Amino acid sequence: MPRTPFANPLVINALVLLGTALGCAHSTEPCVPLAAPTATAVPATAAPLAATVTVPAAVQPVVALASWRDGVAKQRIQSFVQEVGDAASAHYLPPEQRIAVFDNDGTLWSEQPLYFQFIFAVERVRGLLDKDPVLAKKPWAEGLKKDGLKAHLDEKALIEIVTASEAGVSTDEFRELVRSWLSEARHPKLARPFTELTFLPMLELLGFLRQNGFKVYIVSGGSVQFMRAFAALVYGVPPEQVIGSAMDTKYQFQNGKAELVALPKLGFLDDGSGKAVAIDRIIGKRPVFIAGNSDGDFEMLEYGTSTNRPSLGLIVHHDDEVREFAYDRQSHVGKLDRALSEAPAKHWLVVSMKSDFAEVYAPSTRAAVPVVSPVAGP
Amino acid sequence: MPRTPFANPLVINALVLLGTALGCAHSTEPCVPLAAPTATAVPATAAPLAATVTVPAAVQPVVALASWRDGVAKQRIQSFVQEVGDAASAHYLPPEQRIAVFDNDGTLWSEQPLYFQFIFAVERVRGLLDKDPVLAKKPWAEGLKKDGLKAHLDEKALIEIVTASEAGVSTDEFRELVRSWLSEARHPKLARPFTELTFLPMLELLGFLRQNGFKVYIVSGGSVQFMRAFAALVYGVPPEQVIGSAMDTKYQFQNGKAELVALPKLGFLDDGSGKAVAIDRIIGKRPVFIAGNSDGDFEMLEYGTSTNRPSLGLIVHHDDEVREFAYDRQSHVGKLDRALSEAPAKHWLVVSMKSDFAEVYAPSTRAAVPVVSPVAGP
Repeated sequence: MPRTPFANPLVINALVLLGTALGCAHSTEPCVPLAAPTATAVPATAAPLAATVTVPAAVQPVVALASWRDGVAKQRIQSFVQEVGDAASAHYLPPEQRIAVFDNDGTLWSEQPLYFQFIFAVERVRGLLDKDPVLAKKPWAEGLKKDGLKAHLDEKALIEIVTASEAGVSTDEFRELVRSWLSEARHPKLARPFTELTFLPMLELLGFLRQNGFKVYIVSGGSVQFMRAFAALVYGVPPEQVIGSAMDTKYQFQNGKAELVALPKLGFLDDGSGKAVAIDRIIGKRPVFIAGNSDGDFEMLEYGTSTNRPSLGLIVHHDDEVREFAYDRQSHVGKLDRALSEAPAKHWLVVSMKSDFAEVYAPSTRAAVPVVSPVAGP
Repeated sequence: MPRTPFANPLVINALVLLGTALGCAHSTEPCVPLAAPTATAVPATAAPLAATVTVPAAVQPVVALASWRDGVAKQRIQSFVQEVGDAASAHYLPPEQRIAVFDNDGTLWSEQPLYFQFIFAVERVRGLLDKDPVLAKKPWAEGLKKDGLKAHLDEKALIEIVTASEAGVSTDEFRELVRSWLSEARHPKLARPFTELTFLPMLELLGFLRQNGFKVYIVSGGSVQFMRAFAALVYGVPPEQVIGSAMDTKYQFQNGKAELVALPKLGFLDDGSGKAVAIDRIIGKRPVFIAGNSDGDFEMLEYGTSTNRPSLGLIVHHDDEVREFAYDRQSHVGKLDRALSEAPAKHWLVVSMKSDFAEVYAPSTRAAVPVVSPVAGP
């Protein structure tokens, strides 16, 4: 695991904890609201029209798997896609069954030294401290104000911070806040915009699947509203095909304006078995192409591949410490242990970033795309 | 309101109650699990290949609004659809913004004397009593066994029955149970299969919208798994475009088989403001065409139409006691009061079934379509 200012296991374990504390929507137990601040004020409005998000140059048009090295991985992917699309094949699947699901963090973009959404949350809440007396009184407030990402934040603190970053804001406003942040923020180690830290071979894979009649979903632990802020532009995945963790929201109609406002409570954690729950609940179909990179994707992989139908489970293995990061069984971010052990028996394809990716990231380009919601409208 | 064996206000108010007790997923309060039986046994397996579901004859191909009488309603619908699809119009919307949402009960098919899913639940649970000792001990068990739909069932009983009808069964199995039931069951008054009690003009409207680039969703208070059992076949709406109330489910992997099993707890009620919550959560786009028939659709209508974008809110008014049923402000099923009062100021189109529908139901046909899941696979 790389050394970083944020490599504190206590801190990085927060997502695991979230899974324990917050799996309300797929639990038999009563939901326990987080000990989180109530309705934080909405401070700043983003300047959406001025901001731009950088995206990799080669997203569109997609050249089929050009950044994949020839080898078993590329071959298995190509064979699978070819067969399910071939009406003469015994493995043919009609288009409506060609459902592909992709994890996001660590599968479509990097996740070290810390899930990028956590970086957003820390930076956003740091900016709220002067304006929100409730947040300012939190035990972690002083450290956060002084040290930002380098502050010592325990699990409880990080949970409160992630919650506070979204709570009290309408879902439309939140997406604009994320877009505005993405247009300015840079990765602490790689010094590039986060949206450039997407994996070119995986972007090509998304396109390759779409070209062959697959409907591509993101199913990831990140907040659904966070991911929707960039998924359409960066991945070509529209909002209705993004599934993620979700704050509970409240409908509000004021001054002729209708909106959904996030409550200070994470209602659903889209991780582990929660991913299978969400796929069944929201898609209602069993996916046949499943891509992940950590044990949080285990059940999703298992759910899609344990049928008699053709299916392909794929695990992105982070084994390239030169071009990206190298971590698996011992990592606190994106831990890959059980799924790596069981992959051979489950016939899951383990993709080596070092060996199978000819390129990792795409060349940078600053897209002249105004950051406006492609969906929310005026 | 029509007189029926089931017109007991206490009973029929159950959905309203459900809304109060079970709005967990959009509440700030802890979720309270229902006082419901734990994991009821799965008794019978459906015989899916033998069963057929009857569907109206004229679903495919759709002749544009042929069963609508000429008039203001038909004209407004046609104008709206024409304008948003016309790139030269000031009201043009790109296809990705053409999101249409339809309530189901009372909007796409009848809902009198009782939501059809309640009839399913009562009949199914009646059949479980001999096999499930926990259910058999319920205070309502004896009455249910003796009188079925004519039994006196109070709110608590009906809530337990609806929950028990789905709990303990995998979501795949449940859909097959519903399909099997739909292939045999008949409406208590009209003596027709429930799937034939869909409104022909509304089926045409679904097709008309799709032909013009709209993505059509069902957003209804019924169970999402219940509706998915027939929505693809009867409405042409695939599982991933069906949004409804949802039981909490648990991922289970046993004997090499992965499935989601419903817990005895309704985790989300898709009614009232819950519909706006679900649309934002699952679709992530604000709909521009919104059709409902009751106050349970009020917030969904308001959410879609209170913007500067072109939009059309539509209310199906049940005012045809000869061909269907006549009810609105005083009804315990599909109560339409506030939305009817506010429709003029909100510019919502109130469609008179009596005046605007040239036909109500389509001619019957027994489709030779095997009832197999088009999506779940083997």
